[in-house]
Amino acid sequence: MRAEIIAVGSELVSGQSLDTNSQWLSRALGAMGIPVHFHTSLGDDLAENVQVFRIAAGRADVVITSGGLGPTQDDLTREALAAVAGVGLVEDPASLEAIRAMFARRNRVMSERNRVQALFPEGAEPLPNAIGTAPGIGMKVGGCLFFCLPGVPNEMKRMFDEQVAPRLRSSGLATRSIVHRKINMFGKGESEIEAEALDLTARGRVPEVGITASEATISFRIAAEADTEDEANRLIEPTVALIRERFGDLIVGEGAEDVVDALVRELKRTGRSIATAESCTGGLVARLITSVPGVSPHYPGGLVTYSAEAKSNLLDVPEALLKAHTAVSPEVAAEMARRVRERFRTDLGLSVTGIAGPDTDSPDHPVGLVYLGLSTPEETRTRKIELGPEQPRDVIQRRAAKQAINWARLTLRHFEDRPGFD
Amino acid sequence: MRAEIIAVGSELVSGQSLDTNSQWLSRALGAMGIPVHFHTSLGDDLAENVQVFRIAAGRADVVITSGGLGPTQDDLTREALAAVAGVGLVEDPASLEAIRAMFARRNRVMSERNRVQALFPEGAEPLPNAIGTAPGIGMKVGGCLFFCLPGVPNEMKRMFDEQVAPRLRSSGLATRSIVHRKINMFGKGESEIEAEALDLTARGRVPEVGITASEATISFRIAAEADTEDEANRLIEPTVALIRERFGDLIVGEGAEDVVDALVRELKRTGRSIATAESCTGGLVARLITSVPGVSPHYPGGLVTYSAEAKSNLLDVPEALLKAHTAVSPEVAAEMARRVRERFRTDLGLSVTGIAGPDTDSPDHPVGLVYLGLSTPEETRTRKIELGPEQPRDVIQRRAAKQAINWARLTLRHFEDRPGFD
Repeated sequence: MRAEIIAVGSELVSGQSLDTNSQWLSRALGAMGIPVHFHTSLGDDLAENVQVFRIAAGRADVVITSGGLGPTQDDLTREALAAVAGVGLVEDPASLEAIRAMFARRNRVMSERNRVQALFPEGAEPLPNAIGTAPGIGMKVGGCLFFCLPGVPNEMKRMFDEQVAPRLRSSGLATRSIVHRKINMFGKGESEIEAEALDLTARGRVPEVGITASEATISFRIAAEADTEDEANRLIEPTVALIRERFGDLIVGEGAEDVVDALVRELKRTGRSIATAESCTGGLVARLITSVPGVSPHYPGGLVTYSAEAKSNLLDVPEALLKAHTAVSPEVAAEMARRVRERFRTDLGLSVTGIAGPDTDSPDHPVGLVYLGLSTPEETRTRKIELGPEQPRDVIQRRAAKQAINWARLTLRHFEDRPGFD
Repeated sequence: MRAEIIAVGSELVSGQSLDTNSQWLSRALGAMGIPVHFHTSLGDDLAENVQVFRIAAGRADVVITSGGLGPTQDDLTREALAAVAGVGLVEDPASLEAIRAMFARRNRVMSERNRVQALFPEGAEPLPNAIGTAPGIGMKVGGCLFFCLPGVPNEMKRMFDEQVAPRLRSSGLATRSIVHRKINMFGKGESEIEAEALDLTARGRVPEVGITASEATISFRIAAEADTEDEANRLIEPTVALIRERFGDLIVGEGAEDVVDALVRELKRTGRSIATAESCTGGLVARLITSVPGVSPHYPGGLVTYSAEAKSNLLDVPEALLKAHTAVSPEVAAEMARRVRERFRTDLGLSVTGIAGPDTDSPDHPVGLVYLGLSTPEETRTRKIELGPEQPRDVIQRRAAKQAINWARLTLRHFEDRPGFD
């Protein structure tokens, strides 16, 4: 059993875009016990597409392609597949109807060019696309099963999960199960965590454990392989339990969960609410909190007070305080947190003020200097963090936002046993 | 002239690692006028390496491989290349000496296994590696020139620049320069833009123009090839001018610039200011605006009024209005835009209110229903947009934010010639 993944698009082979679809598809197939042996990328050239599809049909049992299904002249996947199969293209009325309906739902008229997206090689199976105009194609060519998906990552992923995976399972091609777990931590550096996990990351350990870092979130990745998913899960569970016990407070969640999901979980668990006042993060803390569905009972809103005037006009931070300490000070961070809690009538008020760069307003304020404020009805505290000066603006904003969110999370986590702060 | 790039490593096809070497090499070759037609990735399997190398030798003039040159048993590039060339492996004394010296400099003893790194296919040219133990290989196989480099990115890049690029130039293969431009548009769908650009995207046109889409931003990618970079730039310029003339208002920038960069450019050009009031986008509009450095004189801040109470308490949206029309209504969008403009004393007030999903508060409000409000001292208008219902929350939030930002941008763009709205 061998799979090949083909990514189509001139922007990939010219180096303008990075192909991340093939990695995602490799992991998805690997998790079903289907090993991927080849990735091929190529441009929008019909003869080359036909050649690459033909080679793949000769050396793989399953081929997944991404890209080349759009409505434009350089979308050639349909034609190339038909040529390799030695058949013509026919219009599928149901797919045409689905494309028309997609445009109608968006109150737009279908362009005549989109009609080509309803063309399929004779004998192929249309694969519905729930969130885009390009349907996919399923087709057996010789002994090889082709699945052609759009190149837009979220459409490609959803269609793989909804259309391709069930067909691979029902055809008996997906046999082994590999289970991955990813446990995410925030609040310590990668090398510190690694030093406390040498037994877990030792080579040859079963299940295998690796450490990765992304935007200051450190993750353990655990992988176990077995005949069934249940068995692989049973293999993995004791390691997950060991990590949870050892790293307790640092753990913010699993999979795609990050520190903000952990904050929302704590808000729901404790029934508390929070409001935000942001200067240098410019709405990023609010944006992260509201990216989590169902947070509205716990997050009435926040203020972005980017200018000094906004801090005094909208938050009532006294002008004298701003003059005496400047906007980048623990005094102003505390006042912002206290005032925003009062304005929104929440349990917690969280504030961020600092210098995201690339320029600064004063030699006393290096780029990356940030003050956080956290206010409860009992007390208001501040923290100074230094994230620069060599980091780019975006990294400083993201790290400041995550540290602010993590502080609120830890404070809520221990609200009952030690009311006050963490 | 065609190049192929081959990346060797089981961690690539299993999806554990993302191949970024091939993109870097594509750009480096493209800048020298050598167009890359194929990327292939494969695992550490000798028969498969031989097959892939043979296919590449048959369809490309230049092949660059990365990976598979280490000292371990799964490093197979040397053997595969020798098999394709039909020759044996011979030890190169100078390379062996360089490997020994590298270990000595690091105060380590060379392991016997590292000796294989001094083996080369008969007739191949060793390529010195200044910062690692693995020398590269240069070799002509039939009419095709192979360069095999290590997989470690900084070793690979340095060896390309120091060893491969000079050889490509002196062999006369690198004679041409390719220049890329990317022009980004927002406000129309891909197929609509394609319909107005059939002459530009026609196959065989010089310079070549392609269309890609990412998060509702549509881009023209233009590539021109010439003997020198200056000449390629001269070739590309008329096409850029034609696109700028034809798509005028839709164009938001070049390269990495998106709709928010265009808004900030208009704010700076007109000297105007804007404030934001967000419900369903939860701070994303503010976050996008404040991601651009230097925006502070034009953006004092914004409000995230996620709850109905916040809309009335912080923005003074009358409770009667909220009751009569609900928070997801043109009336409330208008009031939010007007009030936030007044609160922050700005020229423009921009608001977003709607249903980002996955759940909704009422059958009258399908997921993806969003109202935008834009207020100037003269007038306040609203727009209804429908982005769902099948799109995920994140996509709805991003599209709503970008549409809001684009409306403000277009309004500022025409502020002088037709005061009021776009």
